[in-house]
Amino acid sequence: MGRTSDAGQKILTAAQSLIELRGYSALGVAEICKAAGVPKGSFYYFYDSKEALALAVIDEHWTQQRTAWTHILTADTDPLHRLRQLFEATQATQQAGQQTCGTVSGCLFGNLTLEMSNQTEAIRTRLQQIFEAQVDMVDTVITQAREHGDITLTDTREAARSIVAQLEGQVLFAKLYNNAQRLDTLWANCLALLGAHTPQQTPAPTP
Amino acid sequence: MGRTSDAGQKILTAAQSLIELRGYSALGVAEICKAAGVPKGSFYYFYDSKEALALAVIDEHWTQQRTAWTHILTADTDPLHRLRQLFEATQATQQAGQQTCGTVSGCLFGNLTLEMSNQTEAIRTRLQQIFEAQVDMVDTVITQAREHGDITLTDTREAARSIVAQLEGQVLFAKLYNNAQRLDTLWANCLALLGAHTPQQTPAPTP
Repeated sequence: MGRTSDAGQKILTAAQSLIELRGYSALGVAEICKAAGVPKGSFYYFYDSKEALALAVIDEHWTQQRTAWTHILTADTDPLHRLRQLFEATQATQQAGQQTCGTVSGCLFGNLTLEMSNQTEAIRTRLQQIFEAQVDMVDTVITQAREHGDITLTDTREAARSIVAQLEGQVLFAKLYNNAQRLDTLWANCLALLGAHTPQQTPAPTP
Repeated sequence: MGRTSDAGQKILTAAQSLIELRGYSALGVAEICKAAGVPKGSFYYFYDSKEALALAVIDEHWTQQRTAWTHILTADTDPLHRLRQLFEATQATQQAGQQTCGTVSGCLFGNLTLEMSNQTEAIRTRLQQIFEAQVDMVDTVITQAREHGDITLTDTREAARSIVAQLEGQVLFAKLYNNAQRLDTLWANCLALLGAHTPQQTPAPTP
């Protein structure tokens, strides 16, 4: 097989699966090309380096995740309910991954942060931008919840950071114990971090 | 240099630094031995495999950290104050590491959880045991805080898990932004997760 027009996409797709399962350092270009079913020689036609491929994997994953987060977090429902749905969607994603791969693979961005962020400035910068964007999105919803009268805290940005940190920490445990049920606690913890201690079991849509 | 009595310790010390900085997968036995200043041939005299060395690094690190955690968390002071001191000690450790290495290297156990736990059952099991032990220690202090009348929550184990998860999530951000100041928020978040919303700035020692 030569440099067909979809060989670059095949490399990207194979790398996404492999990085999700085994991280970045453990992989070699030859293995990625073998998994993609493309000749090794074609790799550098599409990507300047393994790092460039990793950045493409990160961007592709974020494009998909941002779409999902935007859909959930800008829905026309109670702001706190949207956060709850974000956690439920995160849990569903980890469960689906486990069913496909046999193991909870965690958050690609968290995985690469701990594996790579202190070694590669380009990856560190990209991951910082993504986590800032996640915090922005959560911050916006928290601010709406405050305007909605659900919470009273003042520093919405710090609260948003803490919620994303709690999400990453619990996903770490879900991966460690290979058990997505660990994420059950995210909603109650989010409410605690927001100082909103009464879980709303069946939030009403915003009129 | 031959198989001197301290060559095994030199390998362990070199591996600890290298794994802390660059993770497990990126390292080879030859590189570890070179950093340790011992001939490569001596490696397998001391360790059956790179995985066995990683387990030894994990055990050594936990032995040190458990001593520090025990010292802090069993001190004769107000229980919540002990948790605060745990967070301050964590921050100080990350800051000291940054001054030594130029970069916040994060939590060795968290790093290896995200890099390795879904690939190596022996490492997964050891990391599970360590995080369970951490949760046990925090749970004990939370239970004492409840007996002390500082908090009223019922599920102390779940709260302990959430506090350790928040710790791991914020350490992830400290590594990502190469900034240990990110850990400033741990104490306020711990109080929020415990439903104890009034930070005690200067807790009195237990009589």
